[in-house]
Amino acid sequence: MTDAVTSNFADRHIGPDTAGLSRILDVVGVDSLDALAAAALPAAILDDTSGTPTGLDVLDPPASEHDVLAELKALAARNVVRTSMIGQGYYDTLTPPVLLRNIIENPAWYTAYTPYQPEISQGRLEALLNFQTMVADLTGMEIANSSMLDEATAAAEAMTLLRRANRKSKSPRLVVDVDLFAQTAAVLATRAEPLGIEIVTADLLGEGLPEGDFFGVILQVPGASGRVVDAAPIIAAAHERGALVAVGADLLALTLLTPPGEQGADACFGTTQRFGVPMGFGGPHAGYLAVGSAHTRTLPGRLVGVSVDADGNPAYRLALQTREQHIRREKATSNICTAQVLLAVLAAMYASYHGAEGLTAIARRVAGHARRLADGLRAAGVEVVHEDFFDTVLVRVPGRADAVLAAALEAGINLFRVDDDHVSVSCDEATTAAHVDAVLAAFGASAAETVETGTALPASLARTSAFLQHEAFTRYRTETAMMRYLRRLSDKDLALDRTMIPLGSCTMKLNAATEMEAITWPEFAGLHPFAPVEQTEGIRQLIADLEGWLAAVTGYDAVSLQPNAGSQGEYAGLLAIRHYHLDRGDTDRDICLIPSSAHGTNAASAVMAGMRVEVVACRENGDVDLDDLRAKIADHGPRLAAIMITYPSTHGVYEHDIAEICGAVHDAGGQVYIDGANLNALVGLARPGKFGGDVSHLNLHKTFCIPHGGGGPGVGPIGVRSHLAPYLPGHPAVPGLGGAGPVSAAPYGSASILPITWAYIKLMGAQGLRRATLTAIASANYIARRLDEYFPVLYTGENGMVAHECILDLRPITKATGVTVDDVAKRLADYGFHAPTMSFPVAGTLMVEPTESEDLDELDAFIDAMISIRGEIDRVGAGEWPVDDNPLRGAPHTAECLVGEWNHPYSREIAVFPMGKRRAKVWPAVRRIDGAHGDRNLVCSCPPLEAYSN
Amino acid sequence: MTDAVTSNFADRHIGPDTAGLSRILDVVGVDSLDALAAAALPAAILDDTSGTPTGLDVLDPPASEHDVLAELKALAARNVVRTSMIGQGYYDTLTPPVLLRNIIENPAWYTAYTPYQPEISQGRLEALLNFQTMVADLTGMEIANSSMLDEATAAAEAMTLLRRANRKSKSPRLVVDVDLFAQTAAVLATRAEPLGIEIVTADLLGEGLPEGDFFGVILQVPGASGRVVDAAPIIAAAHERGALVAVGADLLALTLLTPPGEQGADACFGTTQRFGVPMGFGGPHAGYLAVGSAHTRTLPGRLVGVSVDADGNPAYRLALQTREQHIRREKATSNICTAQVLLAVLAAMYASYHGAEGLTAIARRVAGHARRLADGLRAAGVEVVHEDFFDTVLVRVPGRADAVLAAALEAGINLFRVDDDHVSVSCDEATTAAHVDAVLAAFGASAAETVETGTALPASLARTSAFLQHEAFTRYRTETAMMRYLRRLSDKDLALDRTMIPLGSCTMKLNAATEMEAITWPEFAGLHPFAPVEQTEGIRQLIADLEGWLAAVTGYDAVSLQPNAGSQGEYAGLLAIRHYHLDRGDTDRDICLIPSSAHGTNAASAVMAGMRVEVVACRENGDVDLDDLRAKIADHGPRLAAIMITYPSTHGVYEHDIAEICGAVHDAGGQVYIDGANLNALVGLARPGKFGGDVSHLNLHKTFCIPHGGGGPGVGPIGVRSHLAPYLPGHPAVPGLGGAGPVSAAPYGSASILPITWAYIKLMGAQGLRRATLTAIASANYIARRLDEYFPVLYTGENGMVAHECILDLRPITKATGVTVDDVAKRLADYGFHAPTMSFPVAGTLMVEPTESEDLDELDAFIDAMISIRGEIDRVGAGEWPVDDNPLRGAPHTAECLVGEWNHPYSREIAVFPMGKRRAKVWPAVRRIDGAHGDRNLVCSCPPLEAYSN
Repeated sequence: MTDAVTSNFADRHIGPDTAGLSRILDVVGVDSLDALAAAALPAAILDDTSGTPTGLDVLDPPASEHDVLAELKALAARNVVRTSMIGQGYYDTLTPPVLLRNIIENPAWYTAYTPYQPEISQGRLEALLNFQTMVADLTGMEIANSSMLDEATAAAEAMTLLRRANRKSKSPRLVVDVDLFAQTAAVLATRAEPLGIEIVTADLLGEGLPEGDFFGVILQVPGASGRVVDAAPIIAAAHERGALVAVGADLLALTLLTPPGEQGADACFGTTQRFGVPMGFGGPHAGYLAVGSAHTRTLPGRLVGVSVDADGNPAYRLALQTREQHIRREKATSNICTAQVLLAVLAAMYASYHGAEGLTAIARRVAGHARRLADGLRAAGVEVVHEDFFDTVLVRVPGRADAVLAAALEAGINLFRVDDDHVSVSCDEATTAAHVDAVLAAFGASAAETVETGTALPASLARTSAFLQHEAFTRYRTETAMMRYLRRLSDKDLALDRTMIPLGSCTMKLNAATEMEAITWPEFAGLHPFAPVEQTEGIRQLIADLEGWLAAVTGYDAVSLQPNAGSQGEYAGLLAIRHYHLDRGDTDRDICLIPSSAHGTNAASAVMAGMRVEVVACRENGDVDLDDLRAKIADHGPRLAAIMITYPSTHGVYEHDIAEICGAVHDAGGQVYIDGANLNALVGLARPGKFGGDVSHLNLHKTFCIPHGGGGPGVGPIGVRSHLAPYLPGHPAVPGLGGAGPVSAAPYGSASILPITWAYIKLMGAQGLRRATLTAIASANYIARRLDEYFPVLYTGENGMVAHECILDLRPITKATGVTVDDVAKRLADYGFHAPTMSFPVAGTLMVEPTESEDLDELDAFIDAMISIRGEIDRVGAGEWPVDDNPLRGAPHTAECLVGEWNHPYSREIAVFPMGKRRAKVWPAVRRIDGAHGDRNLVCSCPPLEAYSN
Repeated sequence: MTDAVTSNFADRHIGPDTAGLSRILDVVGVDSLDALAAAALPAAILDDTSGTPTGLDVLDPPASEHDVLAELKALAARNVVRTSMIGQGYYDTLTPPVLLRNIIENPAWYTAYTPYQPEISQGRLEALLNFQTMVADLTGMEIANSSMLDEATAAAEAMTLLRRANRKSKSPRLVVDVDLFAQTAAVLATRAEPLGIEIVTADLLGEGLPEGDFFGVILQVPGASGRVVDAAPIIAAAHERGALVAVGADLLALTLLTPPGEQGADACFGTTQRFGVPMGFGGPHAGYLAVGSAHTRTLPGRLVGVSVDADGNPAYRLALQTREQHIRREKATSNICTAQVLLAVLAAMYASYHGAEGLTAIARRVAGHARRLADGLRAAGVEVVHEDFFDTVLVRVPGRADAVLAAALEAGINLFRVDDDHVSVSCDEATTAAHVDAVLAAFGASAAETVETGTALPASLARTSAFLQHEAFTRYRTETAMMRYLRRLSDKDLALDRTMIPLGSCTMKLNAATEMEAITWPEFAGLHPFAPVEQTEGIRQLIADLEGWLAAVTGYDAVSLQPNAGSQGEYAGLLAIRHYHLDRGDTDRDICLIPSSAHGTNAASAVMAGMRVEVVACRENGDVDLDDLRAKIADHGPRLAAIMITYPSTHGVYEHDIAEICGAVHDAGGQVYIDGANLNALVGLARPGKFGGDVSHLNLHKTFCIPHGGGGPGVGPIGVRSHLAPYLPGHPAVPGLGGAGPVSAAPYGSASILPITWAYIKLMGAQGLRRATLTAIASANYIARRLDEYFPVLYTGENGMVAHECILDLRPITKATGVTVDDVAKRLADYGFHAPTMSFPVAGTLMVEPTESEDLDELDAFIDAMISIRGEIDRVGAGEWPVDDNPLRGAPHTAECLVGEWNHPYSREIAVFPMGKRRAKVWPAVRRIDGAHGDRNLVCSCPPLEAYSN
């Protein structure tokens, strides 16, 4: 261990230095961070933090960056990376180093936020449009979304999509083929049950469609067994029976196989992992979901579309947001409120870098290895089960499966044990002839002849249609061209590496380089999620450490890291509540109380968990209306399942009555779900598991430094009190992991990025975490105090304090001047800032969260920009500038708009350099985007090049 | 090994695809690359390349990126990284991960070129100004340059600087203290001999200054033995004797010690390695050299200065270039034509990140460990030689040195064996109390008490002056602030990650991510250059491989990788010639013939190697004038030492007569030095060692993919025929390495970046290298053909072909229109391109080298820009725009210049978007910089902030 003087990571992570903090506290009107804690938080929930914060004594003392990396190296060394031929949805792949370096190791990509401000997000929006085009092209479907959390949840979303889309069918039954990946089938089962969907498992190829009605059919090509079947007759038969069909498909195989879209499938789902994204012990990877255009508006998740900006130039944006949880709440298409953007970008760029020919060549090589393996086995008299397959060979070895696995392991290769008598072997991009020979030897066969034998795919299913013909997939085939493309795209985006991103509720704090370091180490990145436990000691220890630390920080008794997004955490937590009630015979408890201020996801998740949502009113001051709460509790009595409440509230306030609220629900037999979205305001000060929560999800991508990656990956683990522990998510591949069904494809969700949070906690220690929390609160209050006279702060709590964020109320300003929150948000881009959260949780407001990582310089620069904007608004209000032609309405301004005629009542200088040279100029790539136009004229794949000629 | 389909790195490295190449060859007028080779190169030198190019059968077949990384991992695994307490100029240091990720792993920094176009290089110029400020502050000197190649060469430059500066002294003697690092003393000796400088080694502290005259004194504080002495009396005494004094000083120690500048030193030199730059088996690191303002104009190397741009804004640029080799040739201050920019940036940012307090704390900790070690030894009765020391403890252990080293190694620690009786132990930033205890145990002492004992520095030498008070060293102390600062700076620079950099003679080709990967691996980065050989097997194998491959590629018999810049290679090569002649008794051979077209460095190096330069004229067509050559040879007869000739010539042409030229020189008893600057046009086609060269240097940072790093590191190994092999550079730490003295501080020069070249050659294989060369030639000829009618191509060779670059002659255009090369170069920045080489080798021309990495799209975009610029020139010529107010003279244009009044005869649009949206706009950070103003008003450290208020 190095000495204490270098263990000052907290000073690197936390923005304000001693002088800065002193100024901040001065404005806030408290003497110290301790005094701030006492002033801001209700005494009832505040832990004793006179020494190590209560409960956090399990954390190690803070370690230096150097030492944390050394400890991670030691953990990594306890993993053993063997050649994986396990398959089952996870395949080794060769990530092009140019992509690794320029995307995954580049803060310009990984520190970006979700592209809700499209004018300063054109780079990643273009990359995501490439992703959508890639998926649509390969599957032969018309529209693909910009990624799903993983393959299994994509299948589950396909299930509910089929049900929504098939309005004619009254049947609750869904036919699921037997040949699905076990984790896909298990997640389908988890998700079907609370919704009353009845899953009928059938051997579609062997026995055809079952008797009776059903609204949908789900099958997978190639199947989990590797078998390739012709889905067309099944799809046709299902359609004839009034059912819709979703097909799980391997994108690499689809370079060679007739795509489901050409066979009539209504939806197509899967993963893009093998397109350059390391297995990473299960994730994160980008799942995908694609549909025919008839189903566009019922497609869940994010969808990038093409529209035009104020100057008529093509511009990208998120389309059809009216489908989504943050707008439709319990009526939303799904509870999905994140994606796997960083991984989707990686997969899309992998496709761009290889192009159609490159991908096809890889697929042929993979299929050739599999064919050679099968030929060699057959030649040695070993039984290969299927005639037609792509990459996976199912082998029958009666009674010998364990022996074969052991022999292969001896050669450094992991195979998949299907049962005592069957072994499955999957080839992938990293497979070599030597691997095939070693596997043959493990089966007791001699090395195959090296004669080229082609694939084992049926000629009748050969793909004939072209794909990836757009120049996005033809122009960037050299490293130089790809490197520049990635730079050019990222230059269009405003990420944390250039500005604070003061997004209320989203906690855009520093993602430190040390934290990011380990995620690409092969010892973590190279692990198959179903690798033998002896090979994964290091990552399992890391997971166990992290579960323990998160339990301590939250005050819960048990933690599951499986949910791979906050919404998934909500869902898993609500399922735990559901199963707890059911197991106790409380079968009628299905009412979930949700305050009107809640994240829309809460309601959407509750519905998915089989609950009915009842909204609890808020008082004038923003707090939950206790009278209404009591009335609702009384109304629903024994039907009360739970309350979902965010703490501190989505209004950015520590509600005084939280303990009372929890008590009232508990007294009525309900469970308390405390949404941990705002945990950044609690860590080291108060623990939801101790002040009333039965379950919470946390957002590791907010409070615990996993970068937002341009809109995902997120990680949403849940903590529960002991009575709910039996209902944490389990997994078919890890017996005993949890008592409930899985909510994600992989046992530990997005395991490969957990080192980020592990490192953060190690680096900070208990005191560092507490100081971070208090600094975030101090900075939020500093902004609130300084901006209040310009933009009134809507809600405050104890002693007039806010928590870690504050809502600036623009409604009176808008009423008086016509200038809207949109205008202010877009105008901030001209000033070089990313906008705060817009119109959440209160329409017409901005919610600002500075986090602890921003120093006083940056806070002041933001405040000065806001004050300057207020001055601009006043000039509009005073009639100096018309409401439809002023720097706010005209924002954002591009460099291009400066060069032509200038017919505005404000100068070019005011337009683009409103504060002179004080801040480095980052030019928005486009002007204000017309959202409605894009939704009316929906284009969700790469437009032809002519669109850009101008 | 993975299969062939992924081993297509050459297709990733080489820009033009099949269709692109076909178009290129079409324009050039040849059918194939083979035909191009036959057409462009003189048959006399062309190797047989019908199969594997002659001689290149020693290269392995091309390997995939994946496999090359695996092979590098295997080599890395053969290195053993132990805790180094060896010291002697190399110290372990903790590189802040934020710097590693955002500088060393970021192409925006490492692919940048030397900042000769300052308007598009303001970011790295600012970083270098920080470096200069840091060095000047810490040493207490007035002016520091922007880095030297290493500490030993910095000492050698200090030596010649003292001599130049001390015009009064006629003595050739230099007094050098005994307590210098061995490699510093050895390089001084190497460099002194040819110049007739007589080195008198003296124990200055023990015996004072020697008798007689001397022009200078060099000493080191702390000394190599660790001893800290008061230099002030020595400096005063030397001044009294009419000598000037240079002090080698450890910058970390200077946070605690009175700096040499305050003691009257005339110059100060050293290394900045321990400021965050890994030891890397010896380099690269940034050396430094600082002087009092009296010596500014005699200071060698690059100097960043502050000037103003056309709008009166402060702007950075390279100052006082009139001192340098490319202008003054044999009269230059030194032959230095590169620096260690990337490492200087790293060291400067390390200082920014830690600030004065942080650096002082690190120094105190290091010194405290050393003190504790000494106390513990003394308590155990072990003799510590010196009373006063900083980080290094010299211990007397009669007869026991080997035993102590062995015991320490047992504990995983390397110590320095001074002799049989003495061991030296150096503490550094990575040293911990546990290390100190382990070392104590190795000496047989028990663990020291942990009581804080302070340092072992004399109070009388305590530093009292402030340093690093500029905000560059106070504002970026959090990771967020530093990350954004680095992004902001790099956004101002136009590097290879955004555009081609068509710099003739500089070969700015792709630096692939795979090639860059290994350099930061601890197994390479963590090695001390004097670590025991058993610990460095992997890197030594890599070096041996590379020496063999480079010998094969160049056709020489032996290679030395020690020279850490091309100029050092020239010098080492000329020294080999010098010693060869001397050893044969040819003591009068001191004439070096150099064609008038040569790099200025050639002449400067020749002078340093003790030769007299005789210029050989060039013919009208640019080739060497054979008649003049013969006449010069006849003139000098037995005094002819060598000819230095670049091939292909600096005119970008394969001179037909090269074999004849070499023959003529050989016949006269001279040696042939073929400058390998243009080896990119020969690799795989012809070998200088086979067509007449006796010695060549190569530029690994040009032909062999080591990135230019914003102006260094360079690597300039030399290849020699067998008769010169005994004269390759040696090193005191590696007996038997070479027969001559060292030219660099480290035995293998910049060893840690050699994996880049190793990987490149592995990835390409012989055929790939040959294809790269031919593609570079094809692309240069394509540009020449397409641009000739707009900008006449000055010189061509066989069949009207150029080699890998072409000179565009602007002189007639300038004469006709007044538009200069400068105007065109700056105007290219408005178009989004980096300018070609300006006015070299012919004033008033531009030299364009596309390299093989640029694809047809980029070549065409550049050509179109040049054609468009020619159109602009024509409008000036036609009188449509005045010569002093047109888009060329106004270039480059900033975004800021658009917002005010616009009083130009051309539009804003023409100014900044001359080709519309075809190319992503990169905004120059400043307008045309006034160079003369900067030289007249020299400011070479960070200006006060008020300079920027505007």
